[in-house]
Amino acid sequence: VGSSTVTLDGYGRFGLVHDEGFSSDDTRIEQRFRLNVSVLSVTDGGVEFGGRIRFQSDEGNNGGGVAQNSAAEFNVESGGFRLDVGNTSDVLDSGDVIDYFGNTGVGLTDFGEISSNFVLPVSGFGTSDPDDGEVIPTVKARYAVDAFTFAVSYQADSRDGVSYEEFQIGVGYQISDNLKVGFAYGEVQNVTGVNGLNSNLTDDAEFVAIGLHGSSGAFTYDLLIADIDIDGTDNVDTAFGIGLGYDISAATDIRFVVSDNGVDNNDTAYSLGFRHSLGGGVSLRGGVGEDDGGDTRADLGVRFDF
Amino acid sequence: VGSSTVTLDGYGRFGLVHDEGFSSDDTRIEQRFRLNVSVLSVTDGGVEFGGRIRFQSDEGNNGGGVAQNSAAEFNVESGGFRLDVGNTSDVLDSGDVIDYFGNTGVGLTDFGEISSNFVLPVSGFGTSDPDDGEVIPTVKARYAVDAFTFAVSYQADSRDGVSYEEFQIGVGYQISDNLKVGFAYGEVQNVTGVNGLNSNLTDDAEFVAIGLHGSSGAFTYDLLIADIDIDGTDNVDTAFGIGLGYDISAATDIRFVVSDNGVDNNDTAYSLGFRHSLGGGVSLRGGVGEDDGGDTRADLGVRFDF
Amino acid sequence: VGSSTVTLDGYGRFGLVHDEGFSSDDTRIEQRFRLNVSVLSVTDGGVEFGGRIRFQSDEGNNGGGVAQNSAAEFNVESGGFRLDVGNTSDVLDSGDVIDYFGNTGVGLTDFGEISSNFVLPVSGFGTSDPDDGEVIPTVKARYAVDAFTFAVSYQADSRDGVSYEEFQIGVGYQISDNLKVGFAYGEVQNVTGVNGLNSNLTDDAEFVAIGLHGSSGAFTYDLLIADIDIDGTDNVDTAFGIGLGYDISAATDIRFVVSDNGVDNNDTAYSLGFRHSLGGGVSLRGGVGEDDGGDTRADLGVRFDF
Repeated sequence: VGSSTVTLDGYGRFGLVHDEGFSSDDTRIEQRFRLNVSVLSVTDGGVEFGGRIRFQSDEGNNGGGVAQNSAAEFNVESGGFRLDVGNTSDVLDSGDVIDYFGNTGVGLTDFGEISSNFVLPVSGFGTSDPDDGEVIPTVKARYAVDAFTFAVSYQADSRDGVSYEEFQIGVGYQISDNLKVGFAYGEVQNVTGVNGLNSNLTDDAEFVAIGLHGSSGAFTYDLLIADIDIDGTDNVDTAFGIGLGYDISAATDIRFVVSDNGVDNNDTAYSLGFRHSLGGGVSLRGGVGEDDGGDTRADLGVRFDF
Repeated sequence: VGSSTVTLDGYGRFGLVHDEGFSSDDTRIEQRFRLNVSVLSVTDGGVEFGGRIRFQSDEGNNGGGVAQNSAAEFNVESGGFRLDVGNTSDVLDSGDVIDYFGNTGVGLTDFGEISSNFVLPVSGFGTSDPDDGEVIPTVKARYAVDAFTFAVSYQADSRDGVSYEEFQIGVGYQISDNLKVGFAYGEVQNVTGVNGLNSNLTDDAEFVAIGLHGSSGAFTYDLLIADIDIDGTDNVDTAFGIGLGYDISAATDIRFVVSDNGVDNNDTAYSLGFRHSLGGGVSLRGGVGEDDGGDTRADLGVRFDF
Repeated sequence: VGSSTVTLDGYGRFGLVHDEGFSSDDTRIEQRFRLNVSVLSVTDGGVEFGGRIRFQSDEGNNGGGVAQNSAAEFNVESGGFRLDVGNTSDVLDSGDVIDYFGNTGVGLTDFGEISSNFVLPVSGFGTSDPDDGEVIPTVKARYAVDAFTFAVSYQADSRDGVSYEEFQIGVGYQISDNLKVGFAYGEVQNVTGVNGLNSNLTDDAEFVAIGLHGSSGAFTYDLLIADIDIDGTDNVDTAFGIGLGYDISAATDIRFVVSDNGVDNNDTAYSLGFRHSLGGGVSLRGGVGEDDGGDTRADLGVRFDF
């Protein structure tokens, strides 16, 4: 018979962040508290309906904490099929077919990831300013059959007289228990400037991305290659990211990430970090590296998942 | 001995809504996620004190999700007496004496109800914009003795140099297990324009409403008749609403509502809908109809209560 | 082994407040609903990590309820050592070394406390406006060894081109089970005007405070003496507060507070109140008194803790 469950989960993290790119102070306190409230309702026939909202306290521009809420996401799942609606992930963000962020993020704040500063459009569930916080809904469908996963997402917005439109499609394939590959393609109409790229609201773009995630013994590895064409912009070449993790012990790992977003005049970013589990969902995390602007970044702190 | 309990409940719903009256796009995604956090504290003597706040993600003007919070409502209950204070319902909204919205609401979004677009003042617990979101407190007292229920509510606001004042009183009578009737009377000082009525902030109004709710076998029915006099406005006649529900099976019902708000030049609204329970608090809901402006409306989707 | 727990607690209160100092209406409805969501994660080694956020509905300027969120506070505790980071208390607010607010607060709203209207800088965990709601982080360390408790806190802000800085340090000593004394010292750079004091954003200040809290039989008592020097301001003398509580029965107490903030032309405030427990966390509370402006204040209502 059917049932309904409410779950509270999330994490807290705090520590110190150093970034040469900060305007006022190079080093400041990092703090985040994330609380998800999730509902899962299962019909008599076993179809799963779910919803989720989030409350998050994050850093504002001056390093202080700011309370934020999220709009909701909704989903329905049955067998290998799943539909997501609302404030939810597109194909890239979802990880359905590609581990776009990888499993080798570096630092307390994951400042170094295989897709760091990539100029591909990617959007997912998250908080927003309650003032102008209207989150244009995404619709994503996913279907998993045997070792294959197919996903497609669509997002459209027509505020302020300009219609933004995003379409993504992808396929993932689980080669073995320890190796997964994926491919995604997407189109964007009226893309806005991202990461300093000089695109306008009348420019269109299309991208492809290929990802690989695997593990072998104590090693974990992520690979990501992406290419985006933005109309009227010719300063973006192929982007790539490589992540490598190594388990020193059952409780401790180190991780190294190098990524290049392919934008002319941007540096190749690299970083080295560690995680050390203390039990009870608590872990020490830290990392040091250089970002795509050549600024040194480092962080160190504790995160407790609940 | 005394006790204290915290409860999380609410519902999610999503689907499609079609409305000829939408400005930009006739059809859009409907989405709502509602989370109530309620507290019930019981004294050693059995007096019940309660409070409630709500978090809700709803549609903004552009069809996107917007996170909202509510101010709190408070209540104390002992025997047949109950007092509600704060962001809480007035007599009409509470349903204490009249089922003002009926039990036959049509559609995923209840767009068709027996009181749809009625121009009577009605206010209840709900979310508000956190910016200017000050919710003027309502005080409501209810007393139930035998088959009778008496209720009275008062609300006053004196912002911006204008004092708004609302007073409502009513009585309900449970004729039999399957039949209930009720009467309510109310006065408003300095009513503002509602639903296109040309009332000003210096106009006063008074209303009466009579309701009936019953069931017979597989049938459920709602009846509502209301009359409001607004000073300086003579284009409102008697309003009425009729709702009819029929249980096709244990899991499925159909429902039909017709309502007329009595305002000159407004159409009589009618709608036909269904609900189909899937278990686990999940139900499919949909409806089609025409509203008081002559626009065709329809919706279809799923709602999961938790 | 480690664990992680989420707790929901808080309180609701409602009643009537009378204050001659209210601009529009002397008497209005008091209402507050406070919900804390706290997380406690314990590592395998017994170190405790915690976080907390708060949702609160409070009175706005017009007496209506307003929903508010808080930024998060974080803490880590091990043995006698505890570190607090984020939207958290400074030394005075924390009560680590001095019971700055005492245990003898008068009224439903604690309008009379031993430190009421003191002009010392004191800040703690609380809600903030989500618009400009950036809460500059406080860092506080506390160490308890035998009967001694040491605490130090630091807070800095450099918004709008002005750097505000606060530093506090203190020590508490538990003389016996029923008697505790404490001392705190603090400095503030660029203090802003507080409680009508004519200090500017370029003025500095330093303060000392001595507190005593104890009980004897049915009696409870609080004593607080404080002195603050604000550059360029000579109209603040020594401030003091005395609180006295008496348990009439297991369920009922009365309490009396007198306090003087030492500011020239301010009156000595005093107030008398009671609390009566009804079980289940519910209590009746009320009080009457005169504040530092000579205005009569009184309140009466119910509070339910959960």
